[in-house]
Amino acid sequence: MRRRIAAFGEVMMRLEVPGHQLLSQASNLNYSFSGTGVNITTALAHLGHQTQLVSTLPDNPVGDAAISYLHKLGIQSPTIHRSGHSIGMYFLENGFGVRPSRVTYMNRLASSFNTANKSIYDFHQICKQVDIVHFCGITLAMNESVRQQMKTFAKAAKTNGITVVFDCNYRPSLWGKGGYEKARPHYEEMLRLSDIVLMNEKDAYYTLGMNTEETDRKKQLTTLIPMVAETYHIPIIAGTHRTLHTDQTHTLQGFMYKNQTFTFSKPISFSVLDRIGSGDAYASGIIHGELKEYTSEQTVNFAVSAGALAHTIIGDSPISLEKDIIRVMESGIGDVER
Amino acid sequence: MRRRIAAFGEVMMRLEVPGHQLLSQASNLNYSFSGTGVNITTALAHLGHQTQLVSTLPDNPVGDAAISYLHKLGIQSPTIHRSGHSIGMYFLENGFGVRPSRVTYMNRLASSFNTANKSIYDFHQICKQVDIVHFCGITLAMNESVRQQMKTFAKAAKTNGITVVFDCNYRPSLWGKGGYEKARPHYEEMLRLSDIVLMNEKDAYYTLGMNTEETDRKKQLTTLIPMVAETYHIPIIAGTHRTLHTDQTHTLQGFMYKNQTFTFSKPISFSVLDRIGSGDAYASGIIHGELKEYTSEQTVNFAVSAGALAHTIIGDSPISLEKDIIRVMESGIGDVER
Amino acid sequence: MRRRIAAFGEVMMRLEVPGHQLLSQASNLNYSFSGTGVNITTALAHLGHQTQLVSTLPDNPVGDAAISYLHKLGIQSPTIHRSGHSIGMYFLENGFGVRPSRVTYMNRLASSFNTANKSIYDFHQICKQVDIVHFCGITLAMNESVRQQMKTFAKAAKTNGITVVFDCNYRPSLWGKGGYEKARPHYEEMLRLSDIVLMNEKDAYYTLGMNTEETDRKKQLTTLIPMVAETYHIPIIAGTHRTLHTDQTHTLQGFMYKNQTFTFSKPISFSVLDRIGSGDAYASGIIHGELKEYTSEQTVNFAVSAGALAHTIIGDSPISLEKDIIRVMESGIGDVER
Amino acid sequence: MRRRIAAFGEVMMRLEVPGHQLLSQASNLNYSFSGTGVNITTALAHLGHQTQLVSTLPDNPVGDAAISYLHKLGIQSPTIHRSGHSIGMYFLENGFGVRPSRVTYMNRLASSFNTANKSIYDFHQICKQVDIVHFCGITLAMNESVRQQMKTFAKAAKTNGITVVFDCNYRPSLWGKGGYEKARPHYEEMLRLSDIVLMNEKDAYYTLGMNTEETDRKKQLTTLIPMVAETYHIPIIAGTHRTLHTDQTHTLQGFMYKNQTFTFSKPISFSVLDRIGSGDAYASGIIHGELKEYTSEQTVNFAVSAGALAHTIIGDSPISLEKDIIRVMESGIGDVER
Amino acid sequence: MRRRIAAFGEVMMRLEVPGHQLLSQASNLNYSFSGTGVNITTALAHLGHQTQLVSTLPDNPVGDAAISYLHKLGIQSPTIHRSGHSIGMYFLENGFGVRPSRVTYMNRLASSFNTANKSIYDFHQICKQVDIVHFCGITLAMNESVRQQMKTFAKAAKTNGITVVFDCNYRPSLWGKGGYEKARPHYEEMLRLSDIVLMNEKDAYYTLGMNTEETDRKKQLTTLIPMVAETYHIPIIAGTHRTLHTDQTHTLQGFMYKNQTFTFSKPISFSVLDRIGSGDAYASGIIHGELKEYTSEQTVNFAVSAGALAHTIIGDSPISLEKDIIRVMESGIGDVER
Amino acid sequence: MRRRIAAFGEVMMRLEVPGHQLLSQASNLNYSFSGTGVNITTALAHLGHQTQLVSTLPDNPVGDAAISYLHKLGIQSPTIHRSGHSIGMYFLENGFGVRPSRVTYMNRLASSFNTANKSIYDFHQICKQVDIVHFCGITLAMNESVRQQMKTFAKAAKTNGITVVFDCNYRPSLWGKGGYEKARPHYEEMLRLSDIVLMNEKDAYYTLGMNTEETDRKKQLTTLIPMVAETYHIPIIAGTHRTLHTDQTHTLQGFMYKNQTFTFSKPISFSVLDRIGSGDAYASGIIHGELKEYTSEQTVNFAVSAGALAHTIIGDSPISLEKDIIRVMESGIGDVER
Repeated sequence: MRRRIAAFGEVMMRLEVPGHQLLSQASNLNYSFSGTGVNITTALAHLGHQTQLVSTLPDNPVGDAAISYLHKLGIQSPTIHRSGHSIGMYFLENGFGVRPSRVTYMNRLASSFNTANKSIYDFHQICKQVDIVHFCGITLAMNESVRQQMKTFAKAAKTNGITVVFDCNYRPSLWGKGGYEKARPHYEEMLRLSDIVLMNEKDAYYTLGMNTEETDRKKQLTTLIPMVAETYHIPIIAGTHRTLHTDQTHTLQGFMYKNQTFTFSKPISFSVLDRIGSGDAYASGIIHGELKEYTSEQTVNFAVSAGALAHTIIGDSPISLEKDIIRVMESGIGDVER
Repeated sequence: MRRRIAAFGEVMMRLEVPGHQLLSQASNLNYSFSGTGVNITTALAHLGHQTQLVSTLPDNPVGDAAISYLHKLGIQSPTIHRSGHSIGMYFLENGFGVRPSRVTYMNRLASSFNTANKSIYDFHQICKQVDIVHFCGITLAMNESVRQQMKTFAKAAKTNGITVVFDCNYRPSLWGKGGYEKARPHYEEMLRLSDIVLMNEKDAYYTLGMNTEETDRKKQLTTLIPMVAETYHIPIIAGTHRTLHTDQTHTLQGFMYKNQTFTFSKPISFSVLDRIGSGDAYASGIIHGELKEYTSEQTVNFAVSAGALAHTIIGDSPISLEKDIIRVMESGIGDVER
Repeated sequence: MRRRIAAFGEVMMRLEVPGHQLLSQASNLNYSFSGTGVNITTALAHLGHQTQLVSTLPDNPVGDAAISYLHKLGIQSPTIHRSGHSIGMYFLENGFGVRPSRVTYMNRLASSFNTANKSIYDFHQICKQVDIVHFCGITLAMNESVRQQMKTFAKAAKTNGITVVFDCNYRPSLWGKGGYEKARPHYEEMLRLSDIVLMNEKDAYYTLGMNTEETDRKKQLTTLIPMVAETYHIPIIAGTHRTLHTDQTHTLQGFMYKNQTFTFSKPISFSVLDRIGSGDAYASGIIHGELKEYTSEQTVNFAVSAGALAHTIIGDSPISLEKDIIRVMESGIGDVER
Repeated sequence: MRRRIAAFGEVMMRLEVPGHQLLSQASNLNYSFSGTGVNITTALAHLGHQTQLVSTLPDNPVGDAAISYLHKLGIQSPTIHRSGHSIGMYFLENGFGVRPSRVTYMNRLASSFNTANKSIYDFHQICKQVDIVHFCGITLAMNESVRQQMKTFAKAAKTNGITVVFDCNYRPSLWGKGGYEKARPHYEEMLRLSDIVLMNEKDAYYTLGMNTEETDRKKQLTTLIPMVAETYHIPIIAGTHRTLHTDQTHTLQGFMYKNQTFTFSKPISFSVLDRIGSGDAYASGIIHGELKEYTSEQTVNFAVSAGALAHTIIGDSPISLEKDIIRVMESGIGDVER
Repeated sequence: MRRRIAAFGEVMMRLEVPGHQLLSQASNLNYSFSGTGVNITTALAHLGHQTQLVSTLPDNPVGDAAISYLHKLGIQSPTIHRSGHSIGMYFLENGFGVRPSRVTYMNRLASSFNTANKSIYDFHQICKQVDIVHFCGITLAMNESVRQQMKTFAKAAKTNGITVVFDCNYRPSLWGKGGYEKARPHYEEMLRLSDIVLMNEKDAYYTLGMNTEETDRKKQLTTLIPMVAETYHIPIIAGTHRTLHTDQTHTLQGFMYKNQTFTFSKPISFSVLDRIGSGDAYASGIIHGELKEYTSEQTVNFAVSAGALAHTIIGDSPISLEKDIIRVMESGIGDVER
Repeated sequence: MRRRIAAFGEVMMRLEVPGHQLLSQASNLNYSFSGTGVNITTALAHLGHQTQLVSTLPDNPVGDAAISYLHKLGIQSPTIHRSGHSIGMYFLENGFGVRPSRVTYMNRLASSFNTANKSIYDFHQICKQVDIVHFCGITLAMNESVRQQMKTFAKAAKTNGITVVFDCNYRPSLWGKGGYEKARPHYEEMLRLSDIVLMNEKDAYYTLGMNTEETDRKKQLTTLIPMVAETYHIPIIAGTHRTLHTDQTHTLQGFMYKNQTFTFSKPISFSVLDRIGSGDAYASGIIHGELKEYTSEQTVNFAVSAGALAHTIIGDSPISLEKDIIRVMESGIGDVER
């Protein structure tokens, strides 16, 4: 069954140096438009749902290009406002082996989204048209105005009985020094409004200030996540553990905590083509599994396969179909498909 | 000594999404022209032989482009007819890691080759000018008219004392449901006319309906291939076993059954850049080994090295020189050649 | 006011050699998706209307790419069916000076659109959701099944009181020898159902078999078009006269015949970057003028400016905004806009 | 003789859609770094002088890329400071015929240059190392801090007996409504400090508020420019008149007012490849002519030829050599140079 | 009727900066292989003849690439020798408007062709297999060894009754100071061996030292060319007059002097995309006209149309078909061909 | 502290087939300019030093492009002379897996550098302006004139008390048969003048003719290097051992012999993107370590990390910053840096 999903968040312009040159070597850039909200609504549109973004884009040719691009990704645009002249951007220099990928942000706080009039969105109207709303901790880090919009939207969702998904996604560089303390009350407010939360033990430890004496990552997880669920009354918490290997491959294992029970996916190892956006693919897999009423085991394995596959897709936004994800979940690596 | 080789088969237009994007992401395509017959005649031209293709191409700018491309590959074109307006095509989206490459065929049955007038080729004339003719099971799957042309050509070759090479190359999607039964009589007819056959135990089992109680792949091979050779009076049967690994490498082992004796190559492992056409490189290696009167051991090792090298060449058609193949056969991986 | 417009027609894959090489020289192609219906719905979406295409696309990655591309162009897709495996294509080699552009069609009659099940579309349902439907003579040339679908759709539109637009667009190569006689009854049937027709005196003369003793192109026009309007009870007929110059520029003059009165646009001269699709830009301008209740003079000048601007846009589908077209209409050539 | 020239101004990142697509169509951008000061110092470096830029660039990979690019242009960087995280940018969509080029600015006021600490530059030290300093009216439009830096620098130059060049370059969009009145005092202050000024009658009329009853452009020029020279005690005033033609060519005529005498160049007509930066090429030609002690006639003809040639160079920054400019000045259009 | 044509000459590697950047701006180059002999044999192959080049290429991957490229152009390679390690190259920076195209030669005298062993070619054997041989004055300028090869070949052709074509093609930069005097005896020797000569009045005046008091270009031509024909006993002399215009177009008029009669083509004007190689297209047109026994009028008009069309083809080597040239000859500019 | 470094050597034009095609498949090339001296001065400029190249470039557009490129790399050009018309070049076809990269040199001995007038450089003047001079064994292989220049420069450096660095870099193909004997006296002369030498046991064995009975590579190293240091009175000798693996990774271990003591780096393994120039990165790391007075352990680990990182940078010339190298030295592989 096709469901209606909205996401709230900024649209970023990704400016990627093609291949493996640095910005100081190259002379052209590939551009696309992304952001957590964009990625989630793209992924779920490709899984068969009707999705829309709640955002603001500049009223100029760059904004026009962004809208066209979102349409291409399968996202609908009735709740995208157009005002201001500025868009957040990031430059991406692809890493290779011992040289990590490098992201340089530019112009983020001055963007149309982050400077939009506080009452530009009619959240109650939107809540009448959707089944799920997705929020992200990155938006929480922007400024007070956007934070207020986000909380107002989440409360409207709660009031209208709509499922609230919240991805903690704490980015240290956005909060600066003493960031965890600044961030904590906002995170706590969002967690209390949420039905599905994406996080792992590090969020519990750093952002929420919870403690455990365990030193093993998995034990920390199984100790802290139930505490979070109980404290903030969260029905579902899901996340991943990632391991980097020296041969340019990663291993990912997903988990879901629901009904006081942990379910872990099979660990999956894979080569990495485009690292960015894979966390959003995992989150979309969890949401899709819940919408389709998969078992927990099916859901985490589907989500982790969606995450693995997203590492093989150029661009931030996951565009794999359900059948592609299920093929990976069931068969792993395959020869040419003719 | 330079020999003259003809191949009979369709020229396909390969439309490849550059890099690793999907068709729904990209906006340009690399194109080239290939097909089993093209690949075999290209490979053997680069090994020093004089080769020509027996085929039909549309009489329009696409056909002109195909002819130019075949010339570039070193193939001669006196027996390529020009009629009709259509060429078979396939779109290729390159896979990465857990995402397999994807081939989408288009317009195949309507192509100039597959709709050419039955008596367009003067096979007896051609047979006077060549030493070897190569056929492929893919052509056998097209339609009755092409099948008839192929059998007529093979019989003419037999009559003229020319070596007939046949690559079984069974493609399930081309024959559809119940395909093995439909295909069997045509395969049997070709096998009886052949001097060198490319196949492995799966062809014996599925296409020819032979049985063995062995479960190990290699034992199945050593049981079934002699049965095939005996049943259809085939002097030489050769083929490979391929193993896929999770780190984007493959292992290939070649075999040749000749004079009631099996010869196996050393297994060779390698990274894969372009998977398509590597089977034809192996077949070309076997043909070249026989033409040069290599020992069986030299022939299978040369052929499997040619196959490995073909995985490192962009495009379907193998263009490695004899000295390059021998370097791989003798030395494996090397540092920069200055 | 935003209106709802549907167009019925095939989606073609355009495979363009970049720059000015020939197919036999180049090795890559730019691809996009177009067609008269695509162009009209794109142009009108960019003029602020809600548009959708009624068509069929193959159920494979090529069809997926086409859908994404149509979304990017601003077209909605609820009435695009997915079946079959084939899409119509054309190769485009850009001309230069004395060398004309060259179009090579491939695979058109075998396309999913042209082989779709006759009753695949629910035309009455569609007619409840739109204000205008657009048809084109190219579709009329395909085969009997598509012709029937088109006439059924036009009749349903008539029944539902929806404005029918018909662009004669006679292509000699599609109808073959004796084509005018074959085409005439089908054209006449469509003309009788139409409210706005795109054509000029050549269509009246050749396709409808009407006569005049005038030898001047403009006099032929003013003699024959009123005859057409009267004979087939057509409220509005519009079209253009084009003149090619030796310095790579064209001159275009538009006309509209409405309420028994001719209105001519100012002639406009311009350099040509991409010739294809400019007629559809003109038609869209006429439709938009009527929807906005422009005066006839405003409408033809707007339409001819839209047509001129379309020659400066890469790709078949016009994407200029209303303000851009009005700027050309009012100011002609301008310096850099900062 | 090689002279030392400094320019004060912002480095902008130019993000150009390659070819003639719009931002909403394309997926990649060519990037380079420019700005009036960059263009002037590039042009004069290619004419044999030693040049340096006085500016501030962000301390991140984008700033690194800008520095590398300036070095490539032949500019020296000892007086370029590194601080902040932001660079001014503009997107360029190339026009064609009736469709003008379109520039979309982004992030300008937040740039490292425009937010740099007021006392970051040691202007007196710089003045000891150069013969000429160049300023531009665009910088004057930014903010009060940058304006102060600019005036301080100009006064230091005056104090040190260095030639001050000022290009009026009034951009309406940067000053907004009532801009001329806001700008006037700042312009007047700069004019009083200047030895060579680039402007024409429009600057006198609009920015300086001077009047004449003449209606002909050239008569306005010859009336107003002497008034400006006298009022502000400016030894040399130079500028151009540009005419756009419908066949994508422009005509340019230069003038210089020196020693109470006007000298006009021959008018020169040319096709336009890249419009941006050509005014800076003209200014560089005037400066070079003065440095080389050309006659006024030689200087304006050299400058207008430099301007014409700059329209044929991709990118904002002029890189023609003296011999190339002299060839145009003397011979006009030529056949292939072998 | 298909004829056999050989050309003697160097294969050059063309390294072209794509678009309109200079070498100091760009970072990639398009490469192809050309030369007068390559161009002539390419053009005549596309006009239906069997052609081969007599030349020497290095025995390394660059030579392999050249051979593949010549095959793609339709040239046969049995008389191309492989020795040495070096190829002549030229860099091409495309001009625009007032900026002329710029060619930078590199490595020419050290090339495999120019250093090949004197007796590497079996000219008498070649002469048994062809109907026409083509030579060019550029080869004459290289060194004494190549000059000797050329004269030996021409004499062998004469002996074998083969038609000798000689294109004067005097390049001042190759002969240096006092070049005309150095070149004259070599030119005279070739002219006496020739049946068809490409030249105009400038060659007669400068290279052959003939005089006339006429000042008009055409009168000089009609005075001097008959003197040349008579002096050296040349049956056919043909050539062109070219005029450059300021709007990036050229006008070309061809002539042929045969049986003591001048025939002039209609002058043809056209836009120029790629200037290089157009003279060879004209020469090929003359040769083809003679082979097909056209009237003189047909021949010069065909040749000048071939020349015009060659300006619209990327690359040095003309690849237009006979039908394309005839279309230009008969119709001039046309709209899209579908 | 910023030091001044000069390098003496040829600038080569690198012409690289993009991606993984062969020269016979592709149609465009990426170009850049490199050479050992270029690489060393680039690397040290990026590590914060002031560097210049002592070389000669042709006085034409190719030379202009080379100068611009060197500036972009951060190299200063006051000691680069301009004369002649020719530059050394090499074509690079990137290998993949079992297919090694292939370098084809062209035009090397005829280059402006290798044919420059013997007394073109004022070495004593240069020696007054720098702290270190770098030489390379490749230059020693060119011709007697260049060898003389190199030795003169080295002696001038010695006289002026400047540190002399010499990289043995013996290339068998440049010296030909019996090369070691020819090369030995020249190497010995350079070694006696050197303060820092880059080499390993193979140089001692082959080039210097020293012997050991050890068979293990490391033992040979620790036996022979002290002999070299003692024989030629060399304060510091450094080098690496490289191991190639079948999975496209390499392992590198660096060593430094100083004060009669060996220091070995940790072995570092990494994936290889661009093999060429990594040895120069290692040498630069050694020089930088000495200049910064690192401990021997810090120096070799820094140098081997610089070498590893250089394998991940496109192009020959290392452009990593000190902080990037230290990050690899301390942390190895990392996730995206935001």
